[in-house]
Amino acid sequence: MADSRDRGQLTLVPIGVVRNELGRGISPPRARADRSIIEIDPRLAQGLVGISPGQAVVIIFAFHQSGPFVADQHLLQHPEGDPDRPLRGVFSIRSPYRPNPLGLTTARVLEVEGNRLVVSGLDAFDGTPVMDLKLYTPWVDVPRD
Amino acid sequence: MADSRDRGQLTLVPIGVVRNELGRGISPPRARADRSIIEIDPRLAQGLVGISPGQAVVIIFAFHQSGPFVADQHLLQHPEGDPDRPLRGVFSIRSPYRPNPLGLTTARVLEVEGNRLVVSGLDAFDGTPVMDLKLYTPWVDVPRD
Repeated sequence: MADSRDRGQLTLVPIGVVRNELGRGISPPRARADRSIIEIDPRLAQGLVGISPGQAVVIIFAFHQSGPFVADQHLLQHPEGDPDRPLRGVFSIRSPYRPNPLGLTTARVLEVEGNRLVVSGLDAFDGTPVMDLKLYTPWVDVPRD
Repeated sequence: MADSRDRGQLTLVPIGVVRNELGRGISPPRARADRSIIEIDPRLAQGLVGISPGQAVVIIFAFHQSGPFVADQHLLQHPEGDPDRPLRGVFSIRSPYRPNPLGLTTARVLEVEGNRLVVSGLDAFDGTPVMDLKLYTPWVDVPRD
C-alpha cells in the first residue's frame, strides 16, 4: 500500500469559502448554523445552475483549523473528545483530526444568488474552505439494503 | 475570491484503494458494484475500529481517470453526457469532471477484516484512490427541513 499512498496524491483548490457566525477558534462546532453563505469563486458561479432553494446539497470542506494528523494520537479517538466514551477508529467518527482533513455535511439550500449559495445546517466555521458541492442525490447518498 | 483559491490548498494522500470488477477504462460506472474491497493502508487499519457489517459508510474517492477540469467545457454539462438533457451546473450533477475531482457514495459494509473493508454499492472503478471514509451518521448526512 505504500505504492498507492505515493501515487494518487491530489491537490485541491477551494471552490469557495463559508461565511457564518460560527467559529471562535474553538474545536469543531457542535452547532449547525441557521444560515451560512457559501461564496463561490465567481469564475465557477455558473456551476450552481440547477440548484434551487429547498433542495439539499452535500458540502465537502476542509477542516482548516484542525492541525496535523498524528497516527499515535488520532487513529483511535474518544468520540467528541469525551474521555468517558470508548476509543473508536477515526473512520467511524466525524472528528476533524483525520488522515485527510475533509468534512462532509448535508445542508438545505435557502437561496441562490449569483455566486452566493445560502444554506442552513452547515457545521463549519466562518472562513472554512469549501472543496466541492453536490446536489443531494438519494441514488448515491442514501444507504441501500 | 482569488485569495481563497490561492490560500487553503490541500493535498490529499490516499488512505486506500478500491478493488472490484468495475472499470474497463470507460467513463463513470453506471453500475454500483455488488462487492468492492477497500484496501486501507495497513498503517491506518486501526482507524476502522467501530465499523461493523450492516452499517453504512460514506466514501470520498478520487475520480482519477476523469482528466482535467476545463471551465469552458465542464462548468455546464449535460447530465450523464446525454445531449438531450438540458445543460446543468457542475455542482448540481455528479459528473467526474469537476473543479476538484472528488466522488462521493454511501455504501453498505459487508465485512471488516484487518485492513480490508468489504462494501456493496460503490460506483467507483477498480484502482480508485480512496481519500476518506466516514461512518454514515444521519445527524449530518440526512437533509433536515
